[in-house]
Amino acid sequence: MKIIKEPRGAARRRHDVLARLRVRADAWVATSGTDGLPCLVPLWFLWDGAAVWLSTRITSPTGRNLRDTGRARLALGDTQDVVLINAAVRTFTAQEVPAAAADAFAQRWGWDPRGDHPSYAYFEARPRAIQAWNGVHELKGRYVMRHGEWTAPAP
Amino acid sequence: MKIIKEPRGAARRRHDVLARLRVRADAWVATSGTDGLPCLVPLWFLWDGAAVWLSTRITSPTGRNLRDTGRARLALGDTQDVVLINAAVRTFTAQEVPAAAADAFAQRWGWDPRGDHPSYAYFEARPRAIQAWNGVHELKGRYVMRHGEWTAPAP
Repeated sequence: MKIIKEPRGAARRRHDVLARLRVRADAWVATSGTDGLPCLVPLWFLWDGAAVWLSTRITSPTGRNLRDTGRARLALGDTQDVVLINAAVRTFTAQEVPAAAADAFAQRWGWDPRGDHPSYAYFEARPRAIQAWNGVHELKGRYVMRHGEWTAPAP
Repeated sequence: MKIIKEPRGAARRRHDVLARLRVRADAWVATSGTDGLPCLVPLWFLWDGAAVWLSTRITSPTGRNLRDTGRARLALGDTQDVVLINAAVRTFTAQEVPAAAADAFAQRWGWDPRGDHPSYAYFEARPRAIQAWNGVHELKGRYVMRHGEWTAPAP
């Protein structure tokens, strides 16, 4: 038996990616060490409409890598229904972080890193490229964002 | 309401990790570029009892990174029930790959990279450290392998 699935168009994929950014609790966050060692951890995030906000200890491998390289690759969801984001990352201390982002983060998670251990920092991960596919039939057209620009108009 | 969950012991976690290695189809594979860019992709794998076998094109970012750094970090399953593997990686061409591993890979997937495009290579990812936890209550004791040695006896 062969199941034919129609690949989603670019506008539909953009819609689905944005829905997942709003609803999902956490993402796989991949970073590179300056020593060439990859790191990968699950982290809670907040989507503010333009960037993914993360918070972790600046002393952890992920925190150090985000700060030192300014780069992350995020995966939202599972291996069968993929959303992959290449992001440019800016690092903020608990003193520097914009209040709007930190307040929204605290409200969403009931946890405010600004009142936790001083090693907690914030990371604004701004998407530069986004891929979305849910099977081999969707590999073509998987880039819904390139160079920071959506490939389809707003849904 | 507070749900109390008992954390799994080391032997149980080892058992669960091995079960997942045998059963799961694919893993998130994180690698580092020599330029500091992280990569993250889902790949099919085969567990041979000692190593995770992967195959992808040597010309892809993941293939290049695996070859150039000899390192990968793999995640099996989702962000709520985590299995994370730090692995040392050896690269094999389709001519060099041990027949037993390549035959088992082809049998499992119905796809034999040796007969596909010549850019396909094989990667033997041997676990050096493994973490397993399914919630904050299990963070303590999450290392089921360190320095290539299981922390618990065989289940």
